[in-house]
Amino acid sequence: MSRIAYVNGRYLPLREAAVNVEDRAFQLGDGVYEVCEVRAGRLIDEGRHLARLERSLKAIQIALPMDRAAIGVVLRELVRRNRVENGIVYLQVSRGVAPRNHAFPLSPVKPGVVGTARSIDTALGARRAAEGIAVITVPDNRWGRVDIKTVGLLPNVLAKQAARSSGAFEAWFVDRDGRVTEGASTNAWIVTEDGHLVTRQTDHGILPGITRSVLMDMLGPEKLSVEERPFTVAEALKAREAFISAASTIVLPIVSIDGQTVGSGKPGPVAKRLRALFHAYAETAPAWSVHGARADQRSSTK
Amino acid sequence: MSRIAYVNGRYLPLREAAVNVEDRAFQLGDGVYEVCEVRAGRLIDEGRHLARLERSLKAIQIALPMDRAAIGVVLRELVRRNRVENGIVYLQVSRGVAPRNHAFPLSPVKPGVVGTARSIDTALGARRAAEGIAVITVPDNRWGRVDIKTVGLLPNVLAKQAARSSGAFEAWFVDRDGRVTEGASTNAWIVTEDGHLVTRQTDHGILPGITRSVLMDMLGPEKLSVEERPFTVAEALKAREAFISAASTIVLPIVSIDGQTVGSGKPGPVAKRLRALFHAYAETAPAWSVHGARADQRSSTK
Repeated sequence: MSRIAYVNGRYLPLREAAVNVEDRAFQLGDGVYEVCEVRAGRLIDEGRHLARLERSLKAIQIALPMDRAAIGVVLRELVRRNRVENGIVYLQVSRGVAPRNHAFPLSPVKPGVVGTARSIDTALGARRAAEGIAVITVPDNRWGRVDIKTVGLLPNVLAKQAARSSGAFEAWFVDRDGRVTEGASTNAWIVTEDGHLVTRQTDHGILPGITRSVLMDMLGPEKLSVEERPFTVAEALKAREAFISAASTIVLPIVSIDGQTVGSGKPGPVAKRLRALFHAYAETAPAWSVHGARADQRSSTK
Repeated sequence: MSRIAYVNGRYLPLREAAVNVEDRAFQLGDGVYEVCEVRAGRLIDEGRHLARLERSLKAIQIALPMDRAAIGVVLRELVRRNRVENGIVYLQVSRGVAPRNHAFPLSPVKPGVVGTARSIDTALGARRAAEGIAVITVPDNRWGRVDIKTVGLLPNVLAKQAARSSGAFEAWFVDRDGRVTEGASTNAWIVTEDGHLVTRQTDHGILPGITRSVLMDMLGPEKLSVEERPFTVAEALKAREAFISAASTIVLPIVSIDGQTVGSGKPGPVAKRLRALFHAYAETAPAWSVHGARADQRSSTK
């Protein structure tokens, strides 16, 4: 089955889905995006993702192209038309098409909206979770507002490629003080020797991960304490466990950092538990009801 | 006349010129570009621009999509088809189209090449040069490799828009030590109280401007000395003159920084002289012969 994309109001075969060469996301990186998990045919954390999308758009002064409900319809339609049972749906909003100029178009243009969806091999994710992943560290040389989820991802591209070239799955960005900020496309966590979770505070220096925020909500009932603060690579190497989180990977345990073993060298119990909890949440919680988004009709009729 | 764009081997009306939504420049900022000046129908500094394009491509490991001569043909064809007498030609190369993934495509894809050209109102440029421009300063929050001319320009977009909102023409980025790096789309210069030119050294912290490098070559014969080093905003405010340089604006004198007058508050003699020299060079030097590029057939038959 050929994939279907959404482009400014139309659903098109992916190979015909195109944007003008003067789209500002293409020429100037002037756009933002979201990636949502689809699990068991359900769109996970739609409300939180759309809230973050609105926040990103506001931060760079792009108007919301349509209301949240309409965006939700597009996301679900992409899931349906691409028959995604487990996978991701991608949505990008650019400032629009205008003669190239750094400053915003003098006459406001319509924001461009593009969406795609695709299935992900859950067996591959399960295998990675069972084996644990390797990460490398790279200097965090990104711009000062990585909390805005923009399409300007070249530093992340280069970091991820460096990880792959080293046989690793992810690259952790390390700031000039030697502290881990986050991964190229994931948030970073450790479980200290004392059993406390640590993940960096959300400010301008990391992306406020949606999966990160859902995991946060799960810690209390699990009687797990978390410190939101930076941690160093040395601290991570001494930690009981380390792991990453993101909508596309959920929780993946780390077994080595720059070739050095973390903890027991095997996936740890906290990472395993959180991964299982997230899957259970995604498969059973009323989808689209999280944080005020409207209830999912599909799950309400199940 | 409708504008003509070049897209992967074809010349198309701009409104039909499109790239796939999975072009990596659109989704990941994974591409680089050049902007060349066209003056009196001639393409200026083609050799230097193409050398920098190759350098940018190499820095992010994108293969050269075609040889320099072929790219030169595209640039000149864009100038011709768009009947540009004075203006700019834009060329962008992306890593290509592939299912979205941060790391490079597993099977190499063909780089995407897009070009456009357009006329610029030279009277407007002359008026700005005669009146002088205002600049504002903004924190330099860009990534660590702005020497690579990538399409990830959102910080520059926001800075330029901030300038426009303040009634200024350009925004100067200022690093955390209070030193000016460069403008949102131009290099930054001052003429000190002692009459020395100062412009920041080219390293990872600024884009090595082509117009900057041509101006450098002109200083010796003019008996002007230049120091390549950072300067502070305070130093610029005490300077005799300040100005910007870029292929799209050539030299424009600055008359105010953050609302404070620079020098006499009027365009200074050095900036005026360099602007005139650059125009003379562009209009009379054998185009396309600069720094080893092949001779321009058009000018050789004139």
